[in-house]
Amino acid sequence: MYKYLTKIKSPRDIKDLNINELNEVASEIRTAIINRVSKLGGHFGSNMGIVEATIALHYVFDSPKDKLIFDVSHQCYPHKMLTGRAYGFMNDEDFTKISGYTNPDESEHDIFNVGHTSTSISSSIGLCKARDLKNSKENIIAIIGDGSLSGGEALEGFNVASELNSNLIIVVNDNDMSIAENHGGLYSNLRLLRKSKGMCELNLFKAFGLDYRYIDNGNDLSTLIGVFSEIKDINHPIVIHINTVKGKGSPMAESEKEKFHSTASFNIETGELVSTNPKETYLTVTGDYILEKIKNDKSFVAISAGVPSALGFGFDASKRIEAGEQYIDVGIAEQSTVAVASGIAKNGGKALFGTYSSFIQRTYDQMSHDLCLNNSPATILVSNASIYGFKDKTHIGIFDIPLLSSIPNLVYLAPASKEELTSMLEWSIEQNRYPVAIKMPGGEVFNADYTVSDDFSDLKYQITKKGEGVSIFALGCFYKIGVELYSALKKQNINATLINPRVINILDKSTLDMLKESHHTIVTLEDGILDGGFGEKIASYYTNDSIRVLKYGLKREYIDRYEPNQILLENGIDVESICKDLIW
Amino acid sequence: MYKYLTKIKSPRDIKDLNINELNEVASEIRTAIINRVSKLGGHFGSNMGIVEATIALHYVFDSPKDKLIFDVSHQCYPHKMLTGRAYGFMNDEDFTKISGYTNPDESEHDIFNVGHTSTSISSSIGLCKARDLKNSKENIIAIIGDGSLSGGEALEGFNVASELNSNLIIVVNDNDMSIAENHGGLYSNLRLLRKSKGMCELNLFKAFGLDYRYIDNGNDLSTLIGVFSEIKDINHPIVIHINTVKGKGSPMAESEKEKFHSTASFNIETGELVSTNPKETYLTVTGDYILEKIKNDKSFVAISAGVPSALGFGFDASKRIEAGEQYIDVGIAEQSTVAVASGIAKNGGKALFGTYSSFIQRTYDQMSHDLCLNNSPATILVSNASIYGFKDKTHIGIFDIPLLSSIPNLVYLAPASKEELTSMLEWSIEQNRYPVAIKMPGGEVFNADYTVSDDFSDLKYQITKKGEGVSIFALGCFYKIGVELYSALKKQNINATLINPRVINILDKSTLDMLKESHHTIVTLEDGILDGGFGEKIASYYTNDSIRVLKYGLKREYIDRYEPNQILLENGIDVESICKDLIW
Repeated sequence: MYKYLTKIKSPRDIKDLNINELNEVASEIRTAIINRVSKLGGHFGSNMGIVEATIALHYVFDSPKDKLIFDVSHQCYPHKMLTGRAYGFMNDEDFTKISGYTNPDESEHDIFNVGHTSTSISSSIGLCKARDLKNSKENIIAIIGDGSLSGGEALEGFNVASELNSNLIIVVNDNDMSIAENHGGLYSNLRLLRKSKGMCELNLFKAFGLDYRYIDNGNDLSTLIGVFSEIKDINHPIVIHINTVKGKGSPMAESEKEKFHSTASFNIETGELVSTNPKETYLTVTGDYILEKIKNDKSFVAISAGVPSALGFGFDASKRIEAGEQYIDVGIAEQSTVAVASGIAKNGGKALFGTYSSFIQRTYDQMSHDLCLNNSPATILVSNASIYGFKDKTHIGIFDIPLLSSIPNLVYLAPASKEELTSMLEWSIEQNRYPVAIKMPGGEVFNADYTVSDDFSDLKYQITKKGEGVSIFALGCFYKIGVELYSALKKQNINATLINPRVINILDKSTLDMLKESHHTIVTLEDGILDGGFGEKIASYYTNDSIRVLKYGLKREYIDRYEPNQILLENGIDVESICKDLIW
Repeated sequence: MYKYLTKIKSPRDIKDLNINELNEVASEIRTAIINRVSKLGGHFGSNMGIVEATIALHYVFDSPKDKLIFDVSHQCYPHKMLTGRAYGFMNDEDFTKISGYTNPDESEHDIFNVGHTSTSISSSIGLCKARDLKNSKENIIAIIGDGSLSGGEALEGFNVASELNSNLIIVVNDNDMSIAENHGGLYSNLRLLRKSKGMCELNLFKAFGLDYRYIDNGNDLSTLIGVFSEIKDINHPIVIHINTVKGKGSPMAESEKEKFHSTASFNIETGELVSTNPKETYLTVTGDYILEKIKNDKSFVAISAGVPSALGFGFDASKRIEAGEQYIDVGIAEQSTVAVASGIAKNGGKALFGTYSSFIQRTYDQMSHDLCLNNSPATILVSNASIYGFKDKTHIGIFDIPLLSSIPNLVYLAPASKEELTSMLEWSIEQNRYPVAIKMPGGEVFNADYTVSDDFSDLKYQITKKGEGVSIFALGCFYKIGVELYSALKKQNINATLINPRVINILDKSTLDMLKESHHTIVTLEDGILDGGFGEKIASYYTNDSIRVLKYGLKREYIDRYEPNQILLENGIDVESICKDLIW
């Protein structure tokens, strides 16, 4: 089944193969991709399309001396297989040994840990610059495409690259698809370039001052090897625009490109997802709310920056079309999106921008300068902002509390239940007093066992159980842990106070002061790192009172491919540990 | 002297003027700009170049119904003069009534508070979107240029704009200059467009899918009025590329474009700066260090993102040329720069990127994902990270501590003196264990009265005076306040401990624990907001000990055109107030 792959331990092992054999390798790589992705899930279409280009790159260049930098690195599976890690795709029992992204800890052929888009050109320029200063001569190759071009950091990179007077090869993998539809005018230029076989005068890359070559059949090994051989050791930056087929080799991935960009495990024969996951999640709740809101309020606009899934599952292509002018996808362009939302709010519209916690990191300055300095009452939904969200170290969403809490004028809310999530969305979209961010809860959906307000403008904590002695501040989706802790304490005859803080970044001093009277211990629970987080604010507030504060949250570190409950245990965030800490 | 300007209270007042009269207005506006800037300082060249375009815009369009959005808004002086605020330029006593940036609190003709580059297109798209949803018809006009084009948010904006099916006018003011030299390949395309009078096929804006028109004499009122009249109420996005002369009307500003982009007050006759400020500042110290380092170490690279002044005064054009390959200016492209620095460090080079605190906000994701996740040992210098830095609310640098402190692997250092600043720079550039950020101190230069280490790798606080009872944690440039406080307490027979924490974001627990033994009170002093800052970490650490912690720092708010000592007093950060708080 894997005649070649089992023998390929390094790129050297493909250098003596002929074109037919290399095509066999391509075929085996595709089989191995399908094997892994159908069983484990992962990026599918992007990897299927880049197989030949990756083989050609490793055939022509000499990694790791020559350096391949994969943008997003969601198309690095073929690269991994050619650099000694094919076992992680061929052998089911080895799947988890290999991450889905480039990772220098795995191989000297991986230069960076990468999971965000649009970084490859700029980090490659850095590699070039250091190379030139030490008078070294290796080739630096950035591989970018698949929607990443629209990100500001990539566009900045094209502009900066053109001033480099030395070797830099930028492979633009153009498969006419982003994650969802491609958005933005530059893609019309790519279409024009494809149509004219790269010959039309209007050329974005040349307009950025770069040399340019076009390869029409980006899945043809001979052509790719030919061109890469010609431009190897080139003495200036060049863009190699290759036209590939996303999902190539899998009829279902070729036809349903969005579904199979990145997928959960699926049936190889039918393409049906093994777990279609019909159950309710915070993402389905959000998607349903947004669709309903679009129908009922024509001044409401939902905005995505290339990842509509962050606005909720169920918000698929047909629903997005149905939304018409009330849905905007700007493509991967998070910075622009926050400014767009601010502009909409400033001109009387109701704007909701949703993206993942790891990508909101791209927008700090826009959140502050474009949005909050102008007090524009837009709503920013921070999805997967949870230990239960993405579990790759490149994508973890556990930093948003310290990130957003320092911004003046912003109100950062943490709904603790399904009902509160939609209530906060509705309140925030309808009010025009504050810029509001909402931290979407993670984990299993929790149904409110407390009265959910429909007005959060007083920025007050909610006391859901009034007791004495111990007070539990259980923020966002950790409210559930708070409820469990409350019950455990009850069994030990401690009648604690339970608080749903709701507002993350602004202290409710009257409640905090009131609690002093009859409480000696405070417990804070938050789904994020402790550094600069919610618990620190509370602890810091009580520092001069004889009140004990126990903070529960995560360490400031990049965690990778973890099991959430394991991480919670390691950080002592479980009822048993907390009870032990409490009863001293 | 101001025949027309004294009568212009709103844009309506220029609508009946003929071309000769409008040219008189232009001349008076220039006189008023020179009046203000020569005496008060401010943006000069950018405002001189845009005079005619602004008059033409206000003549043709109907502000505030039609909306003018000025990018950076460092070219809004003519706009202010035409919208009822000429007094702030003509009358010396009224200068301070008018800010240097657009400000909705000043006038309904200003839509946003803006001070950062590259935001105008995206925020204008938002205005358009809201307009379209309410079926309104006003023109939305973004005015951008002068180096802002290279910023990722602007490039994202061009790409996003092209999908808008309605009115949006983007005026690209092309004066062949950024703040310093223009950097990046797109400027070669602008030159080609100028040379071909907009006729060449290679056209960056068209490549982004946008309609395009070129105006060769962007300082000619009749032409400008003609073209703007033609495209008024256009039903799709269009770029109007106008070729203007930066500094137009001032021979000295036309010839010395960088010096007079933004300037301190100067002599109108000679152009000499009134205060050439020969004294030592933290910026001159930094500039001297970097120049010396470049000479002595050929593997060292200093990087700027369009603001070389953030690397230190004295680092002027001639010095930058002298630095050769060891100095890179990528233009305004902060995101790219951090990735470039990470790449250099990853490939064995020594990289220092310096920018202002308010612009480092653009790089959070790159600082985390591109740099720290990869543990690339580059050095990031955060300049003007101080209450003593920029004083416009758009530019204040008081948020960097909470911003950067949440990033794993990063070491964020606060030098407390001139000697420590250079020592930390040197240590950081030479070590290869950590990504390091350095918070440049603000205010008057302080000469170390303590032993400055040359190795900070142990990440420990430095006890500079050992006492008991009260311990003062005096961070960065507030160390000076710590010294004063120490002396004041001494006079009251309190022999305090004085600490130079050096490391902002990582607790030195052994020192913190050691202090418990003989101290009952802790004072923290930091040059930044308290929320998520240094003091909160210390207070939070001591929350369960019977130690009193008094935190001194700033409120989380946008402050504008302030006097630093006044703000410090308001926040109780003065020796007298602290002594009062202490001695209870």
